[in-house]
Parts: sequence; structure tokens; C-alpha cells
Amino acid sequence: MEARNAAASLTIMTEIVLPNDTNVFGNLMGGRLMYWMDIAAALASQKHCNAPVVTASVDNISFENPIKLGNAVHIEAKVTRAFNTSMEIHMKVWGEDMTQQFRYQSNEAYYTFVALDPNRKPRPVPAVIAETEEEKKLFDGALRRRQLRLILGGKMKPDDAAELKAFFMKD
Amino acid sequence: MEARNAAASLTIMTEIVLPNDTNVFGNLMGGRLMYWMDIAAALASQKHCNAPVVTASVDNISFENPIKLGNAVHIEAKVTRAFNTSMEIHMKVWGEDMTQQFRYQSNEAYYTFVALDPNRKPRPVPAVIAETEEEKKLFDGALRRRQLRLILGGKMKPDDAAELKAFFMKD
Amino acid sequence: MEARNAAASLTIMTEIVLPNDTNVFGNLMGGRLMYWMDIAAALASQKHCNAPVVTASVDNISFENPIKLGNAVHIEAKVTRAFNTSMEIHMKVWGEDMTQQFRYQSNEAYYTFVALDPNRKPRPVPAVIAETEEEKKLFDGALRRRQLRLILGGKMKPDDAAELKAFFMKD
Amino acid sequence: MEARNAAASLTIMTEIVLPNDTNVFGNLMGGRLMYWMDIAAALASQKHCNAPVVTASVDNISFENPIKLGNAVHIEAKVTRAFNTSMEIHMKVWGEDMTQQFRYQSNEAYYTFVALDPNRKPRPVPAVIAETEEEKKLFDGALRRRQLRLILGGKMKPDDAAELKAFFMKD
Amino acid sequence: MEARNAAASLTIMTEIVLPNDTNVFGNLMGGRLMYWMDIAAALASQKHCNAPVVTASVDNISFENPIKLGNAVHIEAKVTRAFNTSMEIHMKVWGEDMTQQFRYQSNEAYYTFVALDPNRKPRPVPAVIAETEEEKKLFDGALRRRQLRLILGGKMKPDDAAELKAFFMKD
Amino acid sequence: MEARNAAASLTIMTEIVLPNDTNVFGNLMGGRLMYWMDIAAALASQKHCNAPVVTASVDNISFENPIKLGNAVHIEAKVTRAFNTSMEIHMKVWGEDMTQQFRYQSNEAYYTFVALDPNRKPRPVPAVIAETEEEKKLFDGALRRRQLRLILGGKMKPDDAAELKAFFMKD
Repeated sequence: MEARNAAASLTIMTEIVLPNDTNVFGNLMGGRLMYWMDIAAALASQKHCNAPVVTASVDNISFENPIKLGNAVHIEAKVTRAFNTSMEIHMKVWGEDMTQQFRYQSNEAYYTFVALDPNRKPRPVPAVIAETEEEKKLFDGALRRRQLRLILGGKMKPDDAAELKAFFMKD
Repeated sequence: MEARNAAASLTIMTEIVLPNDTNVFGNLMGGRLMYWMDIAAALASQKHCNAPVVTASVDNISFENPIKLGNAVHIEAKVTRAFNTSMEIHMKVWGEDMTQQFRYQSNEAYYTFVALDPNRKPRPVPAVIAETEEEKKLFDGALRRRQLRLILGGKMKPDDAAELKAFFMKD
Repeated sequence: MEARNAAASLTIMTEIVLPNDTNVFGNLMGGRLMYWMDIAAALASQKHCNAPVVTASVDNISFENPIKLGNAVHIEAKVTRAFNTSMEIHMKVWGEDMTQQFRYQSNEAYYTFVALDPNRKPRPVPAVIAETEEEKKLFDGALRRRQLRLILGGKMKPDDAAELKAFFMKD
Repeated sequence: MEARNAAASLTIMTEIVLPNDTNVFGNLMGGRLMYWMDIAAALASQKHCNAPVVTASVDNISFENPIKLGNAVHIEAKVTRAFNTSMEIHMKVWGEDMTQQFRYQSNEAYYTFVALDPNRKPRPVPAVIAETEEEKKLFDGALRRRQLRLILGGKMKPDDAAELKAFFMKD
Repeated sequence: MEARNAAASLTIMTEIVLPNDTNVFGNLMGGRLMYWMDIAAALASQKHCNAPVVTASVDNISFENPIKLGNAVHIEAKVTRAFNTSMEIHMKVWGEDMTQQFRYQSNEAYYTFVALDPNRKPRPVPAVIAETEEEKKLFDGALRRRQLRLILGGKMKPDDAAELKAFFMKD
Repeated sequence: MEARNAAASLTIMTEIVLPNDTNVFGNLMGGRLMYWMDIAAALASQKHCNAPVVTASVDNISFENPIKLGNAVHIEAKVTRAFNTSMEIHMKVWGEDMTQQFRYQSNEAYYTFVALDPNRKPRPVPAVIAETEEEKKLFDGALRRRQLRLILGGKMKPDDAAELKAFFMKD
């Protein structure tokens, strides 16, 4: 199975915030955004592995700036690294008020997807080739984020998480 | 009001075909696709004019290849030309079967939007600067397509449509 | 295959404009209307041919009067003419403000559908019998609109479009 | 306030059963049908009284034949009788399998709506003039159905329901 | 087939009123509520009989207090009694304005569901054991409500409805 | 501002998995589940603070067992601890196949919401009183999870996260 460029998985999604997507303040609900991000990440990971995928996990997401009714929502999703049968996808989300020519960052997130074979068992996926500086940084950090996921999911002991430990000790 | 590049209005939208978007053959319904295209074109035209817009008209659309359940729908929308208070937006639509690495053209279309001021009256929009070969060709054809729209809408006599006549006589 | 009356395909659809169907002006989005029209036309064409159908094309649509939030949308769809395996459907759309007893025309449109057999191949459909004056006028115009569709779709040379030429020369 | 013909309120609605409207048997869910009927009845009652309305009550509904995925749903709604500030609406619902030319009755129902003034208080509505045999029968039965509603809602004693009593004694 | 406690079927559903669920007064539409109630009742009846079910009928529903945009909707559904292949489900519905700490009753209702076997034929369901005072009262009243349903559906003569007659004579 | 019991915020939500909620395997999409969880958590936090709220962040979520088409989704949400203007909400999610009497755990999650005053500024919320063993454990862990959130959001240095450090060193 040949490794593939991170860039080949890039998926760009644009949505508009409609009334039913908003809370009482007229801002996009966090849940609706996570729904759209799930679809963007699913598409990016399917582009990478050419197989059906399912959502395995979602990392911490922090919502910074509310996206308003009628504004555009931009999502860019790209695979950062593969771990045998799973892929980590990085997403950047912006809001855009077209009438004000104002584009603002909403949040960043990491979703993990698993590729499945026709029997619904996990199947291997190609490795990811990181080319740009940003892709390399995301590739490197993926190991640390994975250790954190495993610890939080009760599947790894903190002691075994070398990269994560180094990160927590770095300051 | 300063003219703006066509490229600045580029809007890329990606959707996934879900069960409720499909007909009995499991293919994307034409009406759902026109709904998504309306949103993509609205976003592209708002980027161009920085004002709220409404759909004025839609040109002939021909649906070539059906897009299947679970496939991705890619829409690229860009302003081609402005006519005082209205803008023509060109869209290209592809389907993509990620598991087969198969990307296929679905259709092309032209939507026209009008910019509105706070009193809901049409307001002037910036002119469009076509830079690439494709943008220039779309810019030139926009006049002919507009004449056809006006004739079909009963607002112009065929005799007054010079560009359109030349087109019909060209072969 | 016996010819059938145009009237037998009449489909009447009524919808209400809900918040999620509206743009920032509180008016029905063009894309939502085209979605409903696609369903109305699909039903009318299925009534005519008693087979599953798919959208083949949509002719120029011009949106005249905006339909407001809470108003009713009335769509009347009827087959105008059949062309071997395809059918042209004519639709009239009105808005209605029930509290003001105000009914207003929104737009008219022509959609074309193709009937499919169980192998998803086009299959012949019955001819259409036009009875009323309006049905006859729509039946006659269908040939001209079809030529325009074929030319715009790159499948016919303008020179071969006799009816269309006569139309452009008529004034 | 002038009385108005029942026929003037006639509202015809047609929907198609999409995947998300169905249960595990691929048939239309009762709740989705009641949702559409609520909108049809709201439109018919608004046509009658030219004022905003709200659902006051729904009478017993019995679902006879399931409507299948891809079939059409036809709803006809008409006001039967007015009671000061409320209106009873009668609805007939059919399913239609267009490919089989098979049209089948699904159910009948009575919804009651109340007209509201700008302060959201009930306001008087015009009386209903029943003209056809069916309209007259529905008009007459409305009194009995209203008594049943009031008794079931704890607002009338069975002893005071003369029409209803006569109905229960009639066999 | 062993009888089962009514309590085992309890289903608690909570929804929030979003813009698209509301009428022009910003209140939950009756049809949307009946849709949610249909799902709650389907879940409660499936819990009781461990088989797929379909909606057979809905009894009179009277809507008391409007539920506002942004408020919560609480639905509690529980099986009251079984009749061979059908089950009656009782539901209580409240609205809740969380910011005002105000919880208000909206309505009560009875839906009837039928259990189906793999051939879509009605199949027997377990009897219901009523334990609390409220469950016993609902169990007893179920017979009377069923007779009313059968009479209104034209399947029973009023003379044969002993429990219903006693009810109408009781005052 | 008086402290309030965790139990008072308990919100129970039940949904059914419909076709449009599923991926190509017929299982609930992770994004749809996160959307429902966002609403459940919003309701629980509003019950606690009696004010409008917005989603501030979501902690790592790991999806264990897929929830199938037609199955029920149960979400239980409860406030664990308050931090001045924010509240952490804990959720447990189960799937349930009613026909198999099979109930299975899907995932657990922590969402954080912020209460807003009428000027959309954060406003103080009541403290949380943990009573049961589980509530106390969740209350204690909330500090550690908050430190992790702040570090991951770049708002705290790992060195300042005493509770988190102790957790990582514990094995």
C-alpha cells in the first residue's frame, strides 16, 4: 500500500447558517457545526484511503467566535497521519460575513476515522506524506494527540506516553 | 465602485448525498442539487458585491451523470460578469465516488442574483475583471446569455439581441 | 402505447414557507422553490408514464415576486408533450398571503424528465393529447423549447432548429 | 362578518414519501402524515378566516392503508363549520402508486383551529355555508363531533350533549 | 407470552423548539408535536412487545398551552393496556421555559400501535400489568376508549359499547 | 446565588435513528449524535443556571458501539461542576434495539457551556452540589479535565496544572 500526500485529501466545505441552525442568540449551534465537521472529515479520510469510514473519536474542541445567521461557514479538512487502520483529520473552521468582508476564525479540531472492509472490520490505510511545514508539524503532533486519546479512553497508561510526557514537561 | 476580480468570488462547496436526497434509484434528486447550487451561487455573489442578494433567474440546466448515495457533490461557483445591479454566477458540479477514486462531471449552470439595499431595492454592484482564459470566455458569453434570458422572460425582442443572433448564425 | 390527456397528469402541490426556507429578507429562497418544483414535476410525469422518472433538464426560470415567510406556495404541474422517452412538464407557481387574501404569481417553468426501465435505461412514454387552448399552445411551443435545450446542451446546431429560428425571426 | 362557502377554503396538498419519512417497513410514519395534515388544515382555515390560526385539537384518526416509500400523498382539506372563534377542518388522505396507477384511501380526519388577533386572543371567524351534499353532512355532524371533543376535554357533561346522545342511541 | 409491567415501557423524550418548528407566533406547531409524540409512542410500544410496530390510531388531542421557541418539550410515554395485537400508549406533554423555571402542561394523548411479524401481519403482544394507581386508572379507561375508537371507526355499534355507555350515563 | 443539586439538571433525551442519520453501513453518524448531545447538554445547563447558554467546548469523545438504523438513542445529561460563568455537563449515551431487548453503551462525553446575560456577556452561575458517589467523582475530576482543556486551548501552562499532573503521575 503506497503512502499518499496529505494534500490529496484536502476537502473544502462551505455552508450557510440558516435559521434552524441557530440558538436563541441567532448564532450557529455548536452541535450543528460538529455535524458538518464530521461530514467534512469523513470525506477527507475517504479520499485518503478509498474505503468507507466511520468516526472513531473527536478531540477537544473549543468554540471561539460565534458564527452568525446568514454568514458562511468554511471548513477545511486534511488527513494529518495514519495509524494502521485509523486516520487523524485536522480541520480549520472560519465564519465569514460577506456583507462586511469580515472573515474570522471559529475553531480547529481533530477527528479520527477508521476504514472498514466489506465485513465491517478495520482495514489498513495508506501512510501519509507530510510535505509543507504545517503538514509536518501536524504529522509530528499526531503521535502526542493519539497518546492523549488512548489515555483518556483508558487504553494506555500515562507512563507509556513518551511524547505526551515530553509535551507536558516542556515548559 | 471599484471593479473586482472574478477569482475573488470563488466559492467551493462539498456535500455528501444522504438517503433523503435520493430518488427511488438511490441517486441525487435534481431538486436537491439545484437547492445546493442556489446557496453556492448566493455565497459567490455576496462575496463579489458585499451585500445581501436574491435569486433573479436560473438558466437552462442539463443533468448528465447521476450522483449516487454516499458520493460527494462538489460545486464551484464564480461570478462571471455584472450588469449594473445583477451578477451572473457560473457553476461546475462534479460527483465523486471516493472508494473508486472516480470523479465525474454532473452539470454546469448559470444563476443570476440581484443585490439589494436595506430598502430591498436593487443596488449597483462592482464590475467583474476576468483574468484567465476561462473567465474571459465566460465574461464574453454572459452578454449572449443575458439576451436569451431577457427574450425568454418577454423583456427583449429577438431582433434587439445582436450577440445572440450572431451565436445562432455562427455555424 | 396509448396517448394520454395532458389533464390526467395534473399535480397540485401546496407548501407553507417555514423559517428555514427563507433568506435574510424573510423570503423563500429560490433553491427551495426549485426543490419543490422538482418533486411536483416528478409526480406529474410519473402520473403520465406510470414509470419511475429522473430529472433530465430544467429550462430558464425567472423569479418575479418573492414569497414571504408564512405564506402559501401553490404549484400546478402538467405534462405538455412527450418526446419518445422524455416528457416536458409545465409549472405555474403562486404565492398566497391568506390573511390579506392576496394571491400573486411567482414564476413559470419547464422541467424535462426521462422515464426509466428496471435496468435504468430510458423507456418510451405515451404521447400527450392536448385538449384546452392552453394545453395546445404549450404543446406547440414544446418543440421550440426542446430545440433550444438541445442547442444549449451542444447536441443540435442552431441551423437545424427550424421552429426556434422562426421564433427568433418572428418580430 | 359575512358567511363564506366551504368550497372557498379547499386546499390540495401533494407530497412524496422520502426515506426519512418512513419506518422500518418502508412505510410513511403516522407522525409525519399528521404533521403534513396540520399544515394543510392550517392553510384551509386561514383561507376561510383571513387571520393567523393555531391548532386547537385533533379528533380520532385511524390509519388504514400504509403509504409506501416513493408514493404520493394527497391531502384535501376543507372547512366544515365555524364555532364563533374556531373552525373544524375535514381532511381526506390518499396514497398513490403512480407506476401501478393505484390510488388508495389512507385516512380521514378532523382538526380544529382557532383564529387569533394581533394580541393572540381568539377572534370571531365567518360562518361556513355548506352547499354540496357532502358539505352539508359534514356541517351537520360537526355539532356532534364538537360535543364529543368538549366531553373528552372535560368541558361538557355527557348529559348536555344532545346530538351526541342521539347518535349513540340511533342504532 | 408473559405479561409485563406498564412501567417497563416508560420512554422519556426531550426536544427543544427550533425556528422551523414554529408558526408565525413563534410557538410550536401542533403537527410537529404530534410527530414527536408518534416517535415516543412507537418507542414505548416497541419496548413493551419487542417487535416492530406501526401507528394504528390516535385519539382526540386537545392543545392547551403553546410551547415557545427555545423552550424544552418533555414527552413521557407508557403503555396502558394491550388488546391482542395492539397496544394503547398514554402520553403526557409539558413545555419548560428553563430561564424562567416555568414548567407547564401542554397536552395528554393516547396513540394505538399494532405489532407486526416479519410478514407484516399483526402478531400477539404481552398483556400489561398496571401497578400504580395511575396505571390502574389508565388500564381501566382503555376499554372505554377502545370502544369509542371502534365506534368512530365504524367497526362497532354504539349499543355494544357497554363501558362507553356507562361513562356517558354516569353524570 | 445559591448552589444547586447536580440532580436537578438531569435531562433525559430519547431519539430514534432515521435513514438520514445513517452512514453507508446503516449506522448513526457521529456528527448527528454530537448534534443531539449538544442539545441535551444545553438543556441540562439551562436547567442549572436559568439563563441562555452557548457551547464553549467539547472534550475528547470516543465512539464505541455503532447505533443502528431504527434503534433508540438514549442520552442522559447532568451538570457536574460550575466554574464561575461556565458549567461542565457529563453525558452518557446508549443505543437500544427494542426488538432484541438489547441495550448497549455508545459513549460518554463532557461538554462545557457558558451562561450569557442579555448583553451576551458571560454571567455567573450557581455552584453545583454533588450528592451521589458518581456525582462526587465527576465533580472531583472536573478540575483535572478543565486544566486539560485550558492547556489544549493554549490558556494554561502544563506546569500550572497540579491536578492534571497528579493524574498523569498516578500509575
